Amino acid sequence: MSFTPTDLETLRAEIQAFADARAWERFHSPRNLLLALMSEVGEAAEIVRWQGDSEPAIPAEAQADWNDEIADVAILLIRLADRSGVDLGEAIRAKLAKAGAKYPVEKFHGSNRKYNS
Amino acid sequence: MSFTPTDLETLRAEIQAFADARAWERFHSPRNLLLALMSEVGEAAEIVRWQGDSEPAIPAEAQADWNDEIADVAILLIRLADRSGVDLGEAIRAKLAKAGAKYPVEKFHGSNRKYNS
Amino acid sequence: MSFTPTDLETLRAEIQAFADARAWERFHSPRNLLLALMSEVGEAAEIVRWQGDSEPAIPAEAQADWNDEIADVAILLIRLADRSGVDLGEAIRAKLAKAGAKYPVEKFHGSNRKYNS
Amino acid sequence: MSFTPTDLETLRAEIQAFADARAWERFHSPRNLLLALMSEVGEAAEIVRWQGDSEPAIPAEAQADWNDEIADVAILLIRLADRSGVDLGEAIRAKLAKAGAKYPVEKFHGSNRKYNS
Repeated sequence: MSFTPTDLETLRAEIQAFADARAWERFHSPRNLLLALMSEVGEAAEIVRWQGDSEPAIPAEAQADWNDEIADVAILLIRLADRSGVDLGEAIRAKLAKAGAKYPVEKFHGSNRKYNS
Repeated sequence: MSFTPTDLETLRAEIQAFADARAWERFHSPRNLLLALMSEVGEAAEIVRWQGDSEPAIPAEAQADWNDEIADVAILLIRLADRSGVDLGEAIRAKLAKAGAKYPVEKFHGSNRKYNS
Repeated sequence: MSFTPTDLETLRAEIQAFADARAWERFHSPRNLLLALMSEVGEAAEIVRWQGDSEPAIPAEAQADWNDEIADVAILLIRLADRSGVDLGEAIRAKLAKAGAKYPVEKFHGSNRKYNS
Repeated sequence: MSFTPTDLETLRAEIQAFADARAWERFHSPRNLLLALMSEVGEAAEIVRWQGDSEPAIPAEAQADWNDEIADVAILLIRLADRSGVDLGEAIRAKLAKAGAKYPVEKFHGSNRKYNS
């Protein structure tokens, strides 16, 4: 699917404003945020844990909850990057470039050999 | 810190192109991607697990690795959203609006009472 | 499969002795241990993340690594319980009793309705 | 603290009996159990995520919930070992022996250098 165009820096600033308005910055250390992110990943896992591969990964009646959990993970990840010195968009681009060099198309086409190394 | 402005939809398309070029779509089910995301969250946790609160959360010599791990989590999260019907930017905005209603500024200023409910 | 009979308290004491011999107690706060546990869960997830349901969940060549990762999670969980006031065997028995009351056999036989509640 | 002596094999058999009585074995694939374990780790993380190092790691009023979450993680870990060919007690002993060789007491006393390697 396509995402609605959305600027990561705008989201970062909105999330910071949300925290600042509530004076929550003192709770938002990198370790606290990583633990909070783990708890949201756990809520996403709860939705899909018993789904067999022959069933839809996300049960239709759980799609709205799933969207919320994925959004929670994303909000905490953006906040975590912000609070730990990571320029998120730049870091993603840099990592994709590294991954492109590590997994050349001709060698890894259709293969998950990489996953075993 | 500020992020370099980066459009989420552009990132999504780049990540999809990366996977398509390698014919990895068949590996990228929501459950597989969530497990992969957990493994990257685990690598981030490895960096900060023994850091006391009086030490920098991210050891200076580990900052580059940290950036890579956070980027890996972000890449998998964007791919997971893409493969499970989540318009990520819209979902984040919708969740922030809900959270704003749930935690009114006047009631939650400086308080983490919410975390105990 | 059956486990070789092993006493949890004996394991707890061995793990404590291991940490004490290295003066690692000061690193072993509950939050640190939970982050460390997450990093080991992530390593287990790395082994199974791309396995389809039609493949063996644990690739044969990864079984020895899998055993090590599961053991690492268990060691950290025992240490975490020890360092956070949880009598692990008793807590497990108490939780099983609660779960038995919550999911009566006649109502939940063959059903995962519970997972959706 | 000391644990009440409890045999791991007895626990494994009790947990299997619990699942068998409800015909839940078909839900208990290794990947499903690992995702379920992640959701319980997330619930434990939720309890400690905002606790500063100067506060008790486990808030007193949350101790009973904490015990339940740790027990849930343990139950799923025992079930996961059972369903993925891991003799848990033996695997723990084998891993402790390896760790003892990797981190000799004289070299790692009071040092967390290992964590950076």
